[in-house]
Amino acid sequence: MIRIYRFRQRTRVRYGIERVGVVDGVLDVLRGEPYESLETTGKMIPLKNVVLLAPCQPTKIVAVALNYRDHAAERNKPMPAEPVIFLKPPSAIIGPGDEIIYPRASKRVDYEGEMAVVMRKRARHLLDSDPVDDYILGYTCANDVSARDLQERDVQYGRAKGFDTFAPIGPCIACGIDPKALNIETRLNGKVHQSSNTKNMAFPADFLVRFISRVMTLEPGDVISTGTPSGIGPMSPGDHVDVTIEGIGTLTNTVMKVREV
Amino acid sequence: MIRIYRFRQRTRVRYGIERVGVVDGVLDVLRGEPYESLETTGKMIPLKNVVLLAPCQPTKIVAVALNYRDHAAERNKPMPAEPVIFLKPPSAIIGPGDEIIYPRASKRVDYEGEMAVVMRKRARHLLDSDPVDDYILGYTCANDVSARDLQERDVQYGRAKGFDTFAPIGPCIACGIDPKALNIETRLNGKVHQSSNTKNMAFPADFLVRFISRVMTLEPGDVISTGTPSGIGPMSPGDHVDVTIEGIGTLTNTVMKVREV
Repeated sequence: MIRIYRFRQRTRVRYGIERVGVVDGVLDVLRGEPYESLETTGKMIPLKNVVLLAPCQPTKIVAVALNYRDHAAERNKPMPAEPVIFLKPPSAIIGPGDEIIYPRASKRVDYEGEMAVVMRKRARHLLDSDPVDDYILGYTCANDVSARDLQERDVQYGRAKGFDTFAPIGPCIACGIDPKALNIETRLNGKVHQSSNTKNMAFPADFLVRFISRVMTLEPGDVISTGTPSGIGPMSPGDHVDVTIEGIGTLTNTVMKVREV
Repeated sequence: MIRIYRFRQRTRVRYGIERVGVVDGVLDVLRGEPYESLETTGKMIPLKNVVLLAPCQPTKIVAVALNYRDHAAERNKPMPAEPVIFLKPPSAIIGPGDEIIYPRASKRVDYEGEMAVVMRKRARHLLDSDPVDDYILGYTCANDVSARDLQERDVQYGRAKGFDTFAPIGPCIACGIDPKALNIETRLNGKVHQSSNTKNMAFPADFLVRFISRVMTLEPGDVISTGTPSGIGPMSPGDHVDVTIEGIGTLTNTVMKVREV
């Protein structure tokens, strides 16, 4: 099992792989992006010496609205017969350790811990017989940050879930893990608020990739955020929020007041 | 007044400008993309000798749900107090002359003729005092193609408006025109179905750019589709649809049955 990290070292942005259980905590630096090949440079860098970035740069983030029955119940919504999808803009992406900026326009900004799929290959109109795993690079943690008051008001999620910094992803892309039964947990200031398992998803990751590929072409690095379990709730400036998924790791972000005029 | 075109000539993709009223129908080929400068190569090509492409390659398409009162009325929806925005994926973009693919999943696919803003500069948290025109490159025609049945079913527009080929834009970016009072018309097989004027928009283009910039950072080439007037309706395979906006030109596309298995 390997984990792919994207990182900055001085001024350069590169990718590296950690061979989990073989050389833990050390990155084998890649020659290029991790989509076509994982060719390494031979250079090794300790993980602790680099600044981690969002692990990919998607052309789009496709998110799933209701995918855990307990979350649909807490939002008083029926489970849809088919996945309901919406988009978050690439401009919303931040990486591990980055700050979620609490916008002036909202009085209630929630965390939503989610498992996210990262695509490896262009996927379009995948058939049931197509080997979907070949199209998937791996899995990461995501926080589908949501201005709940604006979500209710607008109905469409473009604004409520589209603010800059509202799409933290990371810390890495875990490859070669089975996404079907992973524990997922969200903590606010250390206290567990969401605790579930990806086996509770109504539409599993492979189903979602196929379904979405029949609507829109998925590109290498594109992200599918697979929905949140129950336990959503508000964050305040100063809070720190962790999304931990078994086999992937922990995505940590802090919440800050808006800085602009 | 100039119009910016993006085109393919043999295997090369380039931008060119037409100096309207000076040298009509001839492109002055640009050295690079039209965002930083309009430096020309000195090479001139007749417009009729090139294959036109979508005039820009946005990182995101932000669309406005209800922006003409007559369209809100025909959809039985109240006008919102603030713009309601949603996103269309870059994978949906096609250019002038390209085919809109009618997906199997829908039984009703509608045209929605719209004026679209193309950004020139990164725009973030624009103030009322900021000169918004400096951030705008120009205006183009857009067709916010919508699977109306899926739109009703899903509520969120991610699928219904996100299919590949559902975001035709073009044929050019008109610079130096005033977007406040332009006639806009949509024709299906030559018959006028939508006929309005951008002066009927509830939220004008400059307001939308400021509003959206306070939510998400807009990048050069990003597109804001400003909403459709009344007269929306279904298209069928074989139809051709034109969106004409005064001062910009006509975006024409044909509708085709899905080709994949």
